[in-house]
Amino acid sequence: MSVLIVGSTALDSIKTPTAENPRLLGGSASHASVAASFFSPVRLVGVVGDDFPKKYLELYRRHKIDLAGLQILPGKTFHWSGEYEANMNHRRTLLTELGVFETFSPGLPKSHQTTPFVLLANIAPALQHHVLDQIRRPKFVVADTMDLWLNIALPDLLKLLPRLDGFVLNDSEAHQLTQEDNMFTALKKIHKLGPKYVIIKKGSHGSILSGPKGFFLCPAYPLPKVVDPTGAGDSFVGGMMGYLAAARGSIDANIRRAMIYGSVTASFCCEGFGLTRTTKIKRADIDRRVKELEKLTRF
Amino acid sequence: MSVLIVGSTALDSIKTPTAENPRLLGGSASHASVAASFFSPVRLVGVVGDDFPKKYLELYRRHKIDLAGLQILPGKTFHWSGEYEANMNHRRTLLTELGVFETFSPGLPKSHQTTPFVLLANIAPALQHHVLDQIRRPKFVVADTMDLWLNIALPDLLKLLPRLDGFVLNDSEAHQLTQEDNMFTALKKIHKLGPKYVIIKKGSHGSILSGPKGFFLCPAYPLPKVVDPTGAGDSFVGGMMGYLAAARGSIDANIRRAMIYGSVTASFCCEGFGLTRTTKIKRADIDRRVKELEKLTRF
Repeated sequence: MSVLIVGSTALDSIKTPTAENPRLLGGSASHASVAASFFSPVRLVGVVGDDFPKKYLELYRRHKIDLAGLQILPGKTFHWSGEYEANMNHRRTLLTELGVFETFSPGLPKSHQTTPFVLLANIAPALQHHVLDQIRRPKFVVADTMDLWLNIALPDLLKLLPRLDGFVLNDSEAHQLTQEDNMFTALKKIHKLGPKYVIIKKGSHGSILSGPKGFFLCPAYPLPKVVDPTGAGDSFVGGMMGYLAAARGSIDANIRRAMIYGSVTASFCCEGFGLTRTTKIKRADIDRRVKELEKLTRF
Repeated sequence: MSVLIVGSTALDSIKTPTAENPRLLGGSASHASVAASFFSPVRLVGVVGDDFPKKYLELYRRHKIDLAGLQILPGKTFHWSGEYEANMNHRRTLLTELGVFETFSPGLPKSHQTTPFVLLANIAPALQHHVLDQIRRPKFVVADTMDLWLNIALPDLLKLLPRLDGFVLNDSEAHQLTQEDNMFTALKKIHKLGPKYVIIKKGSHGSILSGPKGFFLCPAYPLPKVVDPTGAGDSFVGGMMGYLAAARGSIDANIRRAMIYGSVTASFCCEGFGLTRTTKIKRADIDRRVKELEKLTRF
């Protein structure tokens, strides 16, 4: 089955002490769509300016991503620029130019309005609502978010949560939302806000699912070197949704394995700047790491 | 088989915003010995003063801990006092009185000198050396440590590492020792210092083993409430060594499961002040959580 993914489509300029990587393909929808494309057909919903490099449109197409929902408008593509410290652990935003993103209103082509799997990747909650309003009887809807929306659009986000099947956020966002240090208690509090499935991402410490079948402790694939974690969270949730859309059987029967596939897809994302590493792998590379992860966790 | 455990035997006074817990039984050897006692016979090596409460000697005995190596000397028992902040995440040392611990020299009774499994729990590396000097042909020797010894006794610790089979430390200590942020790279660097098995503890994020069979990602048992993490690391390594000493087959065949048992034993430790919770459980309670952990990690 297909996955519809709405989110940001951006150009990321990433500086490190030793390298500059100007205008890489980035944004939550780009990362999530490429990740999901290893498993299922993807329908991307987003906006870019008329400066958007053709090579990135070709990159989407190579991943068989349906671009009927991608608006190309006169003006500049959303551009984010950031700088890493020497140990790669801290990132500082240098510049954010919204460009055509500032007035983005995601209108869904008719063909997209019955997509069974919907990923509302990180974007303003108002836009997540707007996309969901246009979808008819989706099978499974998941949203991701970021601290920015907790700060400036919390009421919109709180109205979104009861409309979701699943909600994904990281540990510091879960703390911000619930004022809980303990992530298992935070998960229970977030369920009360609406979603049946809640996933807290903990970076290199893996992730935790809380759902109808209880908790699942999902490991992260061990990486001796992290080049650039930008987009890893988007890759995780994109890979997970792609896997779920392709799997037979119930969500409960598949979601743990889907998280493992998402986790492994995210591990590749961390091994290169932007999407440079993820776009070089094949499904077989993902399968191989999933098998390794099985061995690394067996007891 | 038996496990010999040397470490501190102390009285811990733990203050929280809502309670005071004066003179609880504490110390690395106390926590590790009680944890190991669920699986194997334990020989404790340590020192206490003549103020040491009789009820704690009885507690050791109830756990069938052999006290032939516990010196009771005129003077005061090592006393540590600390205070927790409201969120229980930060602990501040209020007082450290070494007492009889200041001049402790662990002499092993003859009966103890051939113990097959040896745990050098957290204590000065010079004392860990001194105990190891007295042991004949041990089967498996593991040491734990703490940041204090990295700061004030690093040369002694570096001389100890090649004498060990296994070395256990937490993530911030691993960073301090290797200057590495990435724990998988840190593990490789620590192997070069001597030990064949290296385990990095990450608190609620579990632990990582690096050994001849590669990495093992060991989960922590999910706790919705942590009352007092003091002694959790000692309980982990104590439980692990107790399980290994009881298991048939090679270390490689058993160490992953041993870590799981250690992890679960540590989870009970966190649910009460000092040893109050751990001393109320039975082996069956541990087995039940291990089964749960199997379910929580299956995919």
